[in-house]
Amino acid sequence: MSKFWNEKINSITPYVAGEQPKPGQKVIKLNTNENPYAPSPKVKDAILSFDISTLRLYPDTNGTSIVEAIAKVEGVKPSQVFVGNGSDEVLALCFQTFFEKQNNTDLPVLTPEFSYSFYPVFEDFYDLRPKKIALRENFKIDPQDYANEPNCGIAIANPNAPTSVAMSLDEISVICKANPDSVVLIDEAYVEFEEDLQSAVKLLPEFPNLCVVRTCSKSYSLAGLRVGYAIASEELIDGLNRAKDSFNSYPTDRLAQAIAAAAILDEEYHKECCQKIIDTRKETTKALEEMGFDVPDSSANFIFAKPPKELTAEGLYQKLRSGGILVRYFKTSGINDRLRITIGTPEEMKEFIAAVKKEVEDAKNS
Amino acid sequence: MSKFWNEKINSITPYVAGEQPKPGQKVIKLNTNENPYAPSPKVKDAILSFDISTLRLYPDTNGTSIVEAIAKVEGVKPSQVFVGNGSDEVLALCFQTFFEKQNNTDLPVLTPEFSYSFYPVFEDFYDLRPKKIALRENFKIDPQDYANEPNCGIAIANPNAPTSVAMSLDEISVICKANPDSVVLIDEAYVEFEEDLQSAVKLLPEFPNLCVVRTCSKSYSLAGLRVGYAIASEELIDGLNRAKDSFNSYPTDRLAQAIAAAAILDEEYHKECCQKIIDTRKETTKALEEMGFDVPDSSANFIFAKPPKELTAEGLYQKLRSGGILVRYFKTSGINDRLRITIGTPEEMKEFIAAVKKEVEDAKNS
Repeated sequence: MSKFWNEKINSITPYVAGEQPKPGQKVIKLNTNENPYAPSPKVKDAILSFDISTLRLYPDTNGTSIVEAIAKVEGVKPSQVFVGNGSDEVLALCFQTFFEKQNNTDLPVLTPEFSYSFYPVFEDFYDLRPKKIALRENFKIDPQDYANEPNCGIAIANPNAPTSVAMSLDEISVICKANPDSVVLIDEAYVEFEEDLQSAVKLLPEFPNLCVVRTCSKSYSLAGLRVGYAIASEELIDGLNRAKDSFNSYPTDRLAQAIAAAAILDEEYHKECCQKIIDTRKETTKALEEMGFDVPDSSANFIFAKPPKELTAEGLYQKLRSGGILVRYFKTSGINDRLRITIGTPEEMKEFIAAVKKEVEDAKNS
Repeated sequence: MSKFWNEKINSITPYVAGEQPKPGQKVIKLNTNENPYAPSPKVKDAILSFDISTLRLYPDTNGTSIVEAIAKVEGVKPSQVFVGNGSDEVLALCFQTFFEKQNNTDLPVLTPEFSYSFYPVFEDFYDLRPKKIALRENFKIDPQDYANEPNCGIAIANPNAPTSVAMSLDEISVICKANPDSVVLIDEAYVEFEEDLQSAVKLLPEFPNLCVVRTCSKSYSLAGLRVGYAIASEELIDGLNRAKDSFNSYPTDRLAQAIAAAAILDEEYHKECCQKIIDTRKETTKALEEMGFDVPDSSANFIFAKPPKELTAEGLYQKLRSGGILVRYFKTSGINDRLRITIGTPEEMKEFIAAVKKEVEDAKNS
């Protein structure tokens, strides 16, 4: 509390990011869904050929080199792409632009009961009325639950986090079709980590109310660079630009623009990298299931695993942590019996599995 | 207008940044107050020694390496420093954190009548009640005008933009002292461009309500990098962190953190660079005054010049523009008789002065 903070800042509960180890601290870091592989070698080329003297000049306000790279790779028009300082910023601007403040409407913003924990923070910060929609069995999202529920907007992560479970394009279509006057925000931070999962970008020609948000943080191994983007109808992109230009005209810097564009255009490296993670996920899932864990089918670079009855999620989290392995544990009731485990390299997951095996055996023998 | 944008986004007038020439376009660019000199050579070292593989990991949320560099150079505690994605973002977060929405208060935010044109955009975007305080003769700010005026916050650029005129520390003290329950935001984007001008950071031990905002864009030649910061009491910095963590946990990227810290710690280069600009400003001012321009005493890396009666500001702006020299012209009534001219290299200003001289002579002869 402070007399110098306004009412809102005094009342909010800010988002808490996953723990980052101190520089030099040796841990196996499976807690913030980072990519275990280095970014594309083209990133190094982009950095080495960057003209440092140009840093004295403001960057392109729209991140045009990134916009054009995305347009090329995704098969959309550059005017359908908006680039921001990480997908958190892009999501925040979407909540600010597309969803109506509760002073102006009785309608809520719909989000899944368990989803990206930044959504409720945005809702509070931007004075939106929240409404959580329960998940179905095995963390499934039923599109019908979003079809007859009055709202001023919808935000869903797909694949959802921390559950790892995905909706199909047909299911997303049902939601977009049933809500022609609301913006449907599909947050695809993890969409590249499944061979069969298609991006909702494919649905854009049909739905002017659909806004797809993506990031370079996960599949492009660039969490440290802060580049995220939205792909949508020109009408929605225009709205995001209005919000951006009321807040910060230059969200991405010159080096980030050069680096992200280079990484996005290296489609081959991107695909290989995602495939390796998918393969490791399958092996990790199998090993955990053999030890009695419940692991819903994941379409992401993480799994959401429930330990066998001998172990609690919190207890296992603590044990792993003291052994130098960080995974994510949420205290939230309803999901506090599981751990969110990022997929690392095969070597890291081997160490992880060995450590888990030891804990399971210790628990069974005690 | 769009049914998908909310009421606020439909009603606002976003900020318009200064024109950026197309890549490859050859112009003398004196329109966005960029530094004509390259950033410190330490920036190159920082880039070449950067471990690219670390880009896969999220950055430090607080930009600790930058925070520590600023704390060292400015003689404050790290807990008194907040780093953001350019000073525009830092200013926006200050407006969001320290000033009360008009639903909750009748009190306005005070700003000078002519000042940074992003302030009214922030006020509109964040639902604040604006109140503009007229400037005195020669664009002077009279601190007494802010001493007896009820308010929920005050924002002043010092030196002010686009006027280039500065207040002294004593004058800022008067404002801080008279408003112990309001945050006084002093936006020092240009404070380094005057030998005798002291930063309000010196006043921080006295005033817990003072928030000083600075940027790496101007004096550090890093407009293309997007790093700005606030220096204030721990109480105010805590508030900014609450706002940041409700919007975007990672505002600055790993490379930007390494680069900005290196530039800030190279104090010698920074000082030399500022001195060169001060010297060129004095020469440019003298040359313009000899041609009959009115030029208020500038403490910034730009001047705010009124052409002699034979020329209009808008006409001269257009003539210079068609000759490949960009300066800034504001249509705003009350300042539309002047041009804001960024100080470039001595060579650029020589070309600028020659072009202006030609226009003055043509006008006198016609």
